[in-house]
Amino acid sequence: MRPSGRDISEMRPISIETGVTKHAEGSCLIRVGDTHVLCTASLEERVPPFLKNSGLGWVTAEYGMLPRATGSRMRREAAQGKQGGRTVEIQRLIGRSLRAGVDRVALGERQITVDCDVLQADGGTRCAAITGGWVALRLAVNALMKAGDVTSDPLVAPVAAVSCGIYAGQPVLDLDYAEDSRAGVDGNFVMLGGNRLIEVQMSAEGATYTRDQMGLLLDLAEKGVNELAAAQTAAVGG
Amino acid sequence: MRPSGRDISEMRPISIETGVTKHAEGSCLIRVGDTHVLCTASLEERVPPFLKNSGLGWVTAEYGMLPRATGSRMRREAAQGKQGGRTVEIQRLIGRSLRAGVDRVALGERQITVDCDVLQADGGTRCAAITGGWVALRLAVNALMKAGDVTSDPLVAPVAAVSCGIYAGQPVLDLDYAEDSRAGVDGNFVMLGGNRLIEVQMSAEGATYTRDQMGLLLDLAEKGVNELAAAQTAAVGG
Amino acid sequence: MRPSGRDISEMRPISIETGVTKHAEGSCLIRVGDTHVLCTASLEERVPPFLKNSGLGWVTAEYGMLPRATGSRMRREAAQGKQGGRTVEIQRLIGRSLRAGVDRVALGERQITVDCDVLQADGGTRCAAITGGWVALRLAVNALMKAGDVTSDPLVAPVAAVSCGIYAGQPVLDLDYAEDSRAGVDGNFVMLGGNRLIEVQMSAEGATYTRDQMGLLLDLAEKGVNELAAAQTAAVGG
Amino acid sequence: MRPSGRDISEMRPISIETGVTKHAEGSCLIRVGDTHVLCTASLEERVPPFLKNSGLGWVTAEYGMLPRATGSRMRREAAQGKQGGRTVEIQRLIGRSLRAGVDRVALGERQITVDCDVLQADGGTRCAAITGGWVALRLAVNALMKAGDVTSDPLVAPVAAVSCGIYAGQPVLDLDYAEDSRAGVDGNFVMLGGNRLIEVQMSAEGATYTRDQMGLLLDLAEKGVNELAAAQTAAVGG
Amino acid sequence: MRPSGRDISEMRPISIETGVTKHAEGSCLIRVGDTHVLCTASLEERVPPFLKNSGLGWVTAEYGMLPRATGSRMRREAAQGKQGGRTVEIQRLIGRSLRAGVDRVALGERQITVDCDVLQADGGTRCAAITGGWVALRLAVNALMKAGDVTSDPLVAPVAAVSCGIYAGQPVLDLDYAEDSRAGVDGNFVMLGGNRLIEVQMSAEGATYTRDQMGLLLDLAEKGVNELAAAQTAAVGG
Amino acid sequence: MRPSGRDISEMRPISIETGVTKHAEGSCLIRVGDTHVLCTASLEERVPPFLKNSGLGWVTAEYGMLPRATGSRMRREAAQGKQGGRTVEIQRLIGRSLRAGVDRVALGERQITVDCDVLQADGGTRCAAITGGWVALRLAVNALMKAGDVTSDPLVAPVAAVSCGIYAGQPVLDLDYAEDSRAGVDGNFVMLGGNRLIEVQMSAEGATYTRDQMGLLLDLAEKGVNELAAAQTAAVGG
Repeated sequence: MRPSGRDISEMRPISIETGVTKHAEGSCLIRVGDTHVLCTASLEERVPPFLKNSGLGWVTAEYGMLPRATGSRMRREAAQGKQGGRTVEIQRLIGRSLRAGVDRVALGERQITVDCDVLQADGGTRCAAITGGWVALRLAVNALMKAGDVTSDPLVAPVAAVSCGIYAGQPVLDLDYAEDSRAGVDGNFVMLGGNRLIEVQMSAEGATYTRDQMGLLLDLAEKGVNELAAAQTAAVGG
Repeated sequence: MRPSGRDISEMRPISIETGVTKHAEGSCLIRVGDTHVLCTASLEERVPPFLKNSGLGWVTAEYGMLPRATGSRMRREAAQGKQGGRTVEIQRLIGRSLRAGVDRVALGERQITVDCDVLQADGGTRCAAITGGWVALRLAVNALMKAGDVTSDPLVAPVAAVSCGIYAGQPVLDLDYAEDSRAGVDGNFVMLGGNRLIEVQMSAEGATYTRDQMGLLLDLAEKGVNELAAAQTAAVGG
Repeated sequence: MRPSGRDISEMRPISIETGVTKHAEGSCLIRVGDTHVLCTASLEERVPPFLKNSGLGWVTAEYGMLPRATGSRMRREAAQGKQGGRTVEIQRLIGRSLRAGVDRVALGERQITVDCDVLQADGGTRCAAITGGWVALRLAVNALMKAGDVTSDPLVAPVAAVSCGIYAGQPVLDLDYAEDSRAGVDGNFVMLGGNRLIEVQMSAEGATYTRDQMGLLLDLAEKGVNELAAAQTAAVGG
Repeated sequence: MRPSGRDISEMRPISIETGVTKHAEGSCLIRVGDTHVLCTASLEERVPPFLKNSGLGWVTAEYGMLPRATGSRMRREAAQGKQGGRTVEIQRLIGRSLRAGVDRVALGERQITVDCDVLQADGGTRCAAITGGWVALRLAVNALMKAGDVTSDPLVAPVAAVSCGIYAGQPVLDLDYAEDSRAGVDGNFVMLGGNRLIEVQMSAEGATYTRDQMGLLLDLAEKGVNELAAAQTAAVGG
Repeated sequence: MRPSGRDISEMRPISIETGVTKHAEGSCLIRVGDTHVLCTASLEERVPPFLKNSGLGWVTAEYGMLPRATGSRMRREAAQGKQGGRTVEIQRLIGRSLRAGVDRVALGERQITVDCDVLQADGGTRCAAITGGWVALRLAVNALMKAGDVTSDPLVAPVAAVSCGIYAGQPVLDLDYAEDSRAGVDGNFVMLGGNRLIEVQMSAEGATYTRDQMGLLLDLAEKGVNELAAAQTAAVGG
Repeated sequence: MRPSGRDISEMRPISIETGVTKHAEGSCLIRVGDTHVLCTASLEERVPPFLKNSGLGWVTAEYGMLPRATGSRMRREAAQGKQGGRTVEIQRLIGRSLRAGVDRVALGERQITVDCDVLQADGGTRCAAITGGWVALRLAVNALMKAGDVTSDPLVAPVAAVSCGIYAGQPVLDLDYAEDSRAGVDGNFVMLGGNRLIEVQMSAEGATYTRDQMGLLLDLAEKGVNELAAAQTAAVGG
């Protein structure tokens, strides 16, 4: 019934390759099916002005898509002279999600910028970006700890995200593009450590939904996030 | 325990004044406590290019804040040369929410733009904008129906929204600014006709939350939305 | 002969409601007929860089129009990414006009920003903005004086403005939109204390004018400004 | 008493050199003392969308300053990414002023764009731009008439402009930069054919003025404009 | 003597992996040492307005760098609101170079956009982009030919590019970042089919150069381009 | 055979008029045939942030074209809100070229900005800008030396530039617009003191070229640059 032939609660294959770029303090290429996102974490020994002398660190994120990551070529945002509304919304979500898993006192007054650039898109790019972004962040923090710059681990637990939706009347896990473009209800679920919620965004355009349906999607999301967290743990060698 | 002295499940006073501007096809000034939003609905007998000859109508929204709607003056977005990320995110939410309550075939090939401008802010401006925006939309559609331009009612049920959050460890309804700025978890709930969900957005920055807590906030949200829907109905004379 | 049926030298009804927003140091909603402008004065204890350590204060203004303040909806300037030429010209005029009535030594090194946002437009918005803007400024300065932060009154006299023009060959006072859009000559007159001139702008597009006609318009303007000054005085309780 | 030693009612030397660029349909380099403006008129056989099929022509203007036209280098507007408020205000004035001297029916459905670029500035650049811009316009129209494309002369009379102001308490004609930067009252006067007014802009920043003073400035302006009109007539060989 | 220990006329290892993204009509990931560029060719069955009904095709290019492609993170151009001067210069060069190898009549009225996004930078990104961009273009054209949409091959010969420079007084081939940042003379050489020149850009900042030195760099460039052309041929299976 | 009737190796008439604007520290109007560029050098006693306390000076350049410098009017870059790719590329070239002739230690920590504004264009504007820009720079440096602010001459030799190309199959010197727009190969050659190369840019769009042809263009360029250098020397009185 799903275009890909997957079961209702079946994730796409997950692969996380780390250390993919020589310059970044942490990096990975995450693949969730045909969605491929390159994530880097860049460390700077300074914080934004509003945190000067606060003793607190900062984690922020930026998101982009290569013009031909998608089925038809999109205009390059740099050439258009601004980031679109969707981009801004997504990168705010990524930053907020990652920060929810960070002890900013333990991080100390430094900033880590996580860049998530979609090389190939097939649905669920923001969720893959959060999941891969956390791996890049973890690796950058590991380096800080190894160097002795940070003593207590600032990352409280893995942060991962998955989308679920109602496709052809049926709740399904991990929407690919073919499903996403026709789903009546579409949700993104960000979780910490596989059992606490960081962010839930469930949107309807046309079809609305009930609390019962919301519960079914949350069940699926928990299953998916746990599989992602296992992949994260394996990738960072933990 | 709440700064305002309200009960945990108590909304702020709601007032919706209609017909507040002589030019717009529909308009209202909604006040939810000290949050005041001027909403207008503007009708155009044309649709965006992607809907030409589709037979479908379109409803879209824009959101703005006067520079001194807030405690300290913010820079005017027109002077800064762009809309901020928060503005873009909010106006996308308003448009998506209102469209979920519209039968776009019944509306026919015409566009209604709902402008929501915050004259005074005290928390919950996006929810007030959705609730008031629907009233402006309802009045513009009433005019279309009275003129015979539309025969079957394109609005399927009222759309209203409320914020809930966890403040001082306690789930509370309808956060004002004093609560919003210190809440660990903050959610916006958009509903159709008081019993179906259109959009749920629950964010944590710092404190995460459980599914049980999510359920308590949804209970509060349903209560709030029903009170807002009653105010909407009274305002449009229905 | 005038579309509104008014006499040649008759102003539209004037109403000035003060204290309309809880955050601003001074505020009013001015209505000149169907032209409604919300004016706020925001105080900051700092001055622009070019005035640092000069001992002088600064008063500046910004102007905006809600998208549906007009008969057909205009694009939002924030969404267009810049303020139009007309907006910039008007806000420079408002700032210059208000400053002409301020003793900047008495004000001391602080800045007051006057925001004038047109909620509904029917001609003469810049004049209403100057007149209402002065009321907001007066109230903000009153608060400064009451708090003892300023001892000698920095406002030398009320600043008010009115438009006059030649409509259907006849000099008329206080043009509304129906007149403004067809007037051959259109002038804006800003005065201090009702008898000194701050700014005269008389433009012809098509029809030119003589010095005698200019004199007749100045006579009308003096009459109008005196009525506006009386309304200002009443509004600020003086 | 004037820094330049000129009499109160004495213009700076005026020179208008025509045909200074080989591409433009009309061009001149106007020098009013040390203020030098290059003016070109460019003809296009099309009109802006709002005039399509109206039978009416259009004249518009743009204004710029070379970065080192002034005593200290100013940032290039193209590099800053926008035209400043002053530039926009000036080019709107030039366009409005020139159009007041054009019979747009006689011109027919074509557009003439007048570019005024200040090569060297010493006060009064907008007035020199209007005066020189009219010469460029006259030459472009002459070419149209010679080619038989226009049969009835669309230019009703010369348009010229001069500044006057109150400097050291004294009304003076044709302010140079040394005067302009210290004048309490500063006015620009645009006239048609030397005896009808197109635009009067008199601004005070600090010092206000009376109707009597306004009359004295108008007397000076009329004298100056007549001298400019004589130079225009000589330049265009008429 | 070179930081990498390479011989003076030794290229870095070259690798070209094709078919790296599922959406693009042609794609490759080119690696020249630690410089990695993802190149995609996107086909559209339309041309820019200036080529409508000309019978000619068009090839254009865009260039970008991921923020952490470099040693320290650079600001994202989309977030800055514009492409920098360097980016614009490079993408104009890539487009011009690729077009020099295209028979635009044989291509027919269609456009191919080549996107070159630098995933990791270590000097010579523009040359790698041209070389890899041609491979993506070749693959997209192959698909067109296979589908019978194009009958005569529009690509006349491979286009490849290499940088050479004078480093520590010595002409060297294929500068990496360590050399590039300290080279007195830096040149980019684009060639067609390994023996004809498309573009030569040799710049000095500080050290100038003679015609003899230019000849030595050209000798090196010919050697490098021939090695690149062999890699291109192998990659496209030819 | 050339549209102008010139010999293959014949420059257009060169004229360099100095001291053309009263404000700039150095200035000239250079005319190479019908290409006229106004060049000014502006001195500031400060350097960009990256050179603070380095003891080194900086020379930079900006380039612009008046809208009607060309055969048909181009849109003003300031009105478009950005500098085009061609402008950016040219002004980077001018700055790089001039810096190659400057001893930045001898200049000391100060910045000279060279503005090159094209008043009339007929091909070769970037070369005329470099040649005239050096004259403006020379005059500004002369003033510094005369004032004793600089003791050792920071200008090592004249910098001049000329274009050559292959027109109708024939290498020709100093392309005018009629040639430039139809040349298969187009090169710009910047030289120091007439015998050392600073920058070579040779581009083909359509026709490629050989090393032999490149040699012929270099021969022509050397001849042209020597004539330009003689004109520079004469202009600066040296």
